[in-house]
Amino acid sequence: MNCTTQAIRIPAEPEGAYEVRIGSGLLAQALDAVAERFPGHRPFLVTDANVERSGHAAALIGESNTEGFVIDPPGEQSKTMRTVESIIAEMETKKFGRDTVIIALGGGTVGDMAGFAAAIFKRGVPCVQIPTTTVAQADSAIGGKTGVDSDLSKNAFGAFHHPAMVIVDCSTLKTLDDRHFRAGLVESIKHAMILDADYFDTIESNLDAILARDEDILCKLAQKNTAIKGRVVYEDPREKNLRRILNFGHTLGHAVETESDYSLLHGEAVAIGIMAACRIAEALDACSDEVGARACALFERLGLPLALPAEATLNALMDTMTRDKKAVGGLPRFILLDALGSVYAPADTFGVEVPPDILESVITRFDKIQD
Amino acid sequence: MNCTTQAIRIPAEPEGAYEVRIGSGLLAQALDAVAERFPGHRPFLVTDANVERSGHAAALIGESNTEGFVIDPPGEQSKTMRTVESIIAEMETKKFGRDTVIIALGGGTVGDMAGFAAAIFKRGVPCVQIPTTTVAQADSAIGGKTGVDSDLSKNAFGAFHHPAMVIVDCSTLKTLDDRHFRAGLVESIKHAMILDADYFDTIESNLDAILARDEDILCKLAQKNTAIKGRVVYEDPREKNLRRILNFGHTLGHAVETESDYSLLHGEAVAIGIMAACRIAEALDACSDEVGARACALFERLGLPLALPAEATLNALMDTMTRDKKAVGGLPRFILLDALGSVYAPADTFGVEVPPDILESVITRFDKIQD
Repeated sequence: MNCTTQAIRIPAEPEGAYEVRIGSGLLAQALDAVAERFPGHRPFLVTDANVERSGHAAALIGESNTEGFVIDPPGEQSKTMRTVESIIAEMETKKFGRDTVIIALGGGTVGDMAGFAAAIFKRGVPCVQIPTTTVAQADSAIGGKTGVDSDLSKNAFGAFHHPAMVIVDCSTLKTLDDRHFRAGLVESIKHAMILDADYFDTIESNLDAILARDEDILCKLAQKNTAIKGRVVYEDPREKNLRRILNFGHTLGHAVETESDYSLLHGEAVAIGIMAACRIAEALDACSDEVGARACALFERLGLPLALPAEATLNALMDTMTRDKKAVGGLPRFILLDALGSVYAPADTFGVEVPPDILESVITRFDKIQD
Repeated sequence: MNCTTQAIRIPAEPEGAYEVRIGSGLLAQALDAVAERFPGHRPFLVTDANVERSGHAAALIGESNTEGFVIDPPGEQSKTMRTVESIIAEMETKKFGRDTVIIALGGGTVGDMAGFAAAIFKRGVPCVQIPTTTVAQADSAIGGKTGVDSDLSKNAFGAFHHPAMVIVDCSTLKTLDDRHFRAGLVESIKHAMILDADYFDTIESNLDAILARDEDILCKLAQKNTAIKGRVVYEDPREKNLRRILNFGHTLGHAVETESDYSLLHGEAVAIGIMAACRIAEALDACSDEVGARACALFERLGLPLALPAEATLNALMDTMTRDKKAVGGLPRFILLDALGSVYAPADTFGVEVPPDILESVITRFDKIQD
């Protein structure tokens, strides 16, 4: 029989942009800012039990009767399709429609879940991100990655869905517990290590003020992180190549986080992943060992464990890494540096396949966490 | 405190296109066509138990060892997040990664589920649509709408995710049962009614050959449907305005389909919705009653019921319509015609808010299906 072909054209999309506001005490005006940006939309607040206890949700809601959903228990254990379905069921019950704007108030897991709910609710509604942790302010609130975990892997379900606006209120960090505050700084250090050696110096020399949660230095970090991440995701929003450098420390980091059953925080796991990446680069003669030494010293000043939990066996980690999204054809890929502030990119490609023997020797060099 | 703002830029996206192949006996070459379009990708076949029984899956797979997932039971009752999670769990277990290409072989529900799984698996992989029913070939395989139902509403979860390629094999319609074959033709009639009066004439005068499943006329219908739908979705891929005309008959149709608990087929429900839209337009003096009379005659030649199931009470239908995605601010909107092949568009806006009294009188005029 004859076969005919027709082309269905997909129209071009013009360049866009979204605003990131950075400052202190911004929560009280956040609803007004959202209403100004989305006139006629109904705001729906997604937050979690920790953020509610901290008083941030009340500061945002004020006297308004904003409806919403509180994720409980908070954290990665709730980052599942079940929770996203519950968020959407609540919106459906309250007859929210396509004129919804979701406001995500919280850390990385709240932003990931609320952003993913926004991406798939009635085929997409806008989401305003208001990150309240060091990791979310530095990294996850910007760039449009959303998703939830499956039983088998992290962010197995997800979508690219750019936020409609980001509000970074550095004063929300005051209530963050010390362990989360410190672990979240690893994403700032990651930004510095891959793209900006001067920024690394700034973090090193201001670490005491940062740990004292001085708002001026925290706002400076937020500005720097926003500029770096914004530049990378503009160049490569869908992670075809350059954006992969933001996964520095995350190949092993994600696996360690998963295998620890989330007893390690994301930043703590990424710090281990960054150390592994430094040692792999040393083994490949791609990078001097000074870079790993400076990173290690900074992580130790932050009090990060840098040791593997007992359940993160070599086999389990290798298996989890090959299921990772970054694995193409079954082999995990690592972002490596050739110097501080500079990513190793043979043939202009980021993401290096590492021989299993090198990988195994690097992993087995880590201490185990003692119970 | 100071508040600074930075803009995160989102890059422009160039115009794209995807190919629609239309012909007979195309299944045997489909895997080759996919491999040519996506070299180095691993195909993952999603189909359902009906399509498997019909032999189409075997015809596609041939001697290859293509892996996949069979949706069982078939149909709308499986169109849930549970099924999408099962599809993705199977891909994860088999270590499929970002280099996956999902092949959706089946009717509208298979295409919706497989397309949505492709949209959210590891933040998006390509999907090739191979529709095997009249409704999927005419409508749902093209245009990128994907999604699944919640307990409360149809397509509550979803994404716009354009297919990477569409293969329309008209010979697959030979195995379709008569009720599904006839109901699916309603989407072709819908295309004719909103945009192409000549096409309506063609369907009227060739209905006997169509019902005899003459492959030449079926291929002609596929070409016409592809051209019409392709034009509309190019103008408005995200359904901001023009694309809404494709929802002609669907505002009430979706509600009837839901309230019948899917005992009515999609096309049967949409035929009722089209008749309601015609009568609303008559009541508003927007359209002559000749249009509704011709549509009614054609639907009767197709043997469609055009009556409401007992459980589809007025209250239930009104409630479901206000939860529909097209409801903005709580009022359902209807696409209406002002003539055959021409959509009524006061102030260049498609989707008319209909006064509840008119809507109620139109709904109560329908017969009830007798048990």
